[in-house]
Amino acid sequence: MDNKLMLMIPGPTPVPEQVLLALAQHPIGHRSGEFSAVMAEVTQNLKWLHQTQNDVLVLTVSGTGAMEAGIINFLSPGDRVLVGSNGKFGDRWAKMSAAFGLEVEAITAEWGQPLDPEAFRQKLEADTDKTIKAVIVTHSETSTGVLNDLETINRYVKDHGQALIIVDAVTSVGAVNLPIDEWGIDVVASGSQKGYMIPPGLGFVCVSDKAWQAYETAKLPRFYLDLGSYRKAAQKNSNPFTPPVNLMLGLQTALRMMKAEGLDNIFARHQRLMQATRAAIEALSLPLFAPDNAASPAVTAVAPVSIEAEKIRSVMKKRFDIALAGGQDHFKGKIFRIGHLGFVCDRDILAAIGALEATLRELGYESMTPGAGVSAAARVLTQS
Amino acid sequence: MDNKLMLMIPGPTPVPEQVLLALAQHPIGHRSGEFSAVMAEVTQNLKWLHQTQNDVLVLTVSGTGAMEAGIINFLSPGDRVLVGSNGKFGDRWAKMSAAFGLEVEAITAEWGQPLDPEAFRQKLEADTDKTIKAVIVTHSETSTGVLNDLETINRYVKDHGQALIIVDAVTSVGAVNLPIDEWGIDVVASGSQKGYMIPPGLGFVCVSDKAWQAYETAKLPRFYLDLGSYRKAAQKNSNPFTPPVNLMLGLQTALRMMKAEGLDNIFARHQRLMQATRAAIEALSLPLFAPDNAASPAVTAVAPVSIEAEKIRSVMKKRFDIALAGGQDHFKGKIFRIGHLGFVCDRDILAAIGALEATLRELGYESMTPGAGVSAAARVLTQS
Repeated sequence: MDNKLMLMIPGPTPVPEQVLLALAQHPIGHRSGEFSAVMAEVTQNLKWLHQTQNDVLVLTVSGTGAMEAGIINFLSPGDRVLVGSNGKFGDRWAKMSAAFGLEVEAITAEWGQPLDPEAFRQKLEADTDKTIKAVIVTHSETSTGVLNDLETINRYVKDHGQALIIVDAVTSVGAVNLPIDEWGIDVVASGSQKGYMIPPGLGFVCVSDKAWQAYETAKLPRFYLDLGSYRKAAQKNSNPFTPPVNLMLGLQTALRMMKAEGLDNIFARHQRLMQATRAAIEALSLPLFAPDNAASPAVTAVAPVSIEAEKIRSVMKKRFDIALAGGQDHFKGKIFRIGHLGFVCDRDILAAIGALEATLRELGYESMTPGAGVSAAARVLTQS
Repeated sequence: MDNKLMLMIPGPTPVPEQVLLALAQHPIGHRSGEFSAVMAEVTQNLKWLHQTQNDVLVLTVSGTGAMEAGIINFLSPGDRVLVGSNGKFGDRWAKMSAAFGLEVEAITAEWGQPLDPEAFRQKLEADTDKTIKAVIVTHSETSTGVLNDLETINRYVKDHGQALIIVDAVTSVGAVNLPIDEWGIDVVASGSQKGYMIPPGLGFVCVSDKAWQAYETAKLPRFYLDLGSYRKAAQKNSNPFTPPVNLMLGLQTALRMMKAEGLDNIFARHQRLMQATRAAIEALSLPLFAPDNAASPAVTAVAPVSIEAEKIRSVMKKRFDIALAGGQDHFKGKIFRIGHLGFVCDRDILAAIGALEATLRELGYESMTPGAGVSAAARVLTQS
């Protein structure tokens, strides 16, 4: 049906009506007092969302641009970095680091499996000369639906004492608990079209004091992504370069909504949506791609065997107006992904699972008891 | 009056209602067929707007990010570049080039005056070893309202034969004729919140074949701003990184409006608005900051003598709900700037000049004949 699409992809995620209306406001001047007030409020609320007293800087970039800023501001050519790589995004940070002349050591895991914190521990403990300058980890790996054990990896980085920890939290900020100050995470990058409930176009970088110290001596060239300029401007509730005013107005509205819901409720909701989705997938005898102990509350990947993933996506879209994501790179056509991140409620999961059951029926899938998926999801949703 | 602000600053510029409504659409997936269709249309229309067959690539950045991409993709550390610098933005490109380790030779002019093409000719003719790799010029200098003589400077670059010409056209694309293919301009960078009539958040880089050849050997590190990735994706009507879907929908609408108006009409309108504004300022005995032969059709800067620029801006805003821009850097408080760029019609100029007259009256300015400003503007507008 025209204009009735429901996004169940891990970004862009659904956007609340009041945020859409905020976007449609006529822009104001970015050097005006009115806009400074927006910046002041947004900055305060971003700190709340990040559970931090660190700087949280807003850039006009995609998530990849935020990660690039999070890497190039704190490192110099030839610096040794450990990069966790168990999906498309981990792979991307390894490639990016290499493009900037860093000495990359990848710690890999199969796609669909979490990174092994022990592999980090060994490398970090062996580094008695303290040559490792940073550990770069993707928290929630969007391409596979895997949540890496950041807390444990970070503990080993802290034991090392010197290396910075730089985190891609693109699908974890606003979806899963990431207590930045409590854990002492140095750099956290994220993007607007995920847990933030607004369209793509804004990137966020959260920077610790330790990272700012590294900034002072870091030698990679930078100008547009120079976080020092953003920090200096942010202290005056301003921006070094013209910000996307309308997206900032949308962000202001979305952050107010998030505060009204409360962090604990937001995390509990994502946990519940994930569990309901996973219970339904299992009840439909479809293989979950990520294990239970490393499942991302942002996105659930499914690896169907007797039935083609792309056919499922196609029927879901054509017949039921639900957009699911496909697999990426070498998992294209082999998995599909259900996003349950951001502005998603319990009803959305029931709708998606109901449509998935109907789709499987249309495609002649026989390994399921009709109704089993919705029933399993409903059980989780009503228990919690 | 609340919610009645009229933007007469050189960016963000006014946004048409249908563009605002396009922005407020629920986002669609950026990997969907629907979005590819948007990309295909937008790419075609961007080529039309740029009067070119070259690639016009869309990035999620401010104008500064677009210029950075336009520089770092085609040059290597130590490369010698001539940078024209007669305002805040020219200065910025000199600083940026230095930040990336280029050997910068600045060709300067006083703020408010145009660059002297002869200075470029001399440097370029003297360069018989062809060590100059690029000439970087701001076409319309937003900070001063000066339009540099790009056509002549470019002719000398063409005589040189080797150097690329890289142009900041942030406030000239969609405002003043810039026939990229006819002149053979290699790299042209611009931003969405100007002639494009949409809010900030998108940057554009137009790249010639000669520039792509330079790209092959250019050694400055890049990843998020690597234009090769954007070109490769654009060939499939896609993007290397998540694009700001809503801004792209706004862009689609704005480009359709621009096509309906026609390039010649758009340029004639900006010319008319500039002439009307300048005639009015002169009729009010206020000093124009830029000379007639180098006046930008995007923005008119005024340097009042007997009356404070910031007081004028303050009354214009408080009493008449018109936002004007102030001076930047060392011209803060010394000039004010009237933006007449993008979605601005003849009526807007009459309103702004009428309000300016009333403001001058309120501030006790005596060197004017009441009505002279509006009358002079009206004369220009009705003649053309």
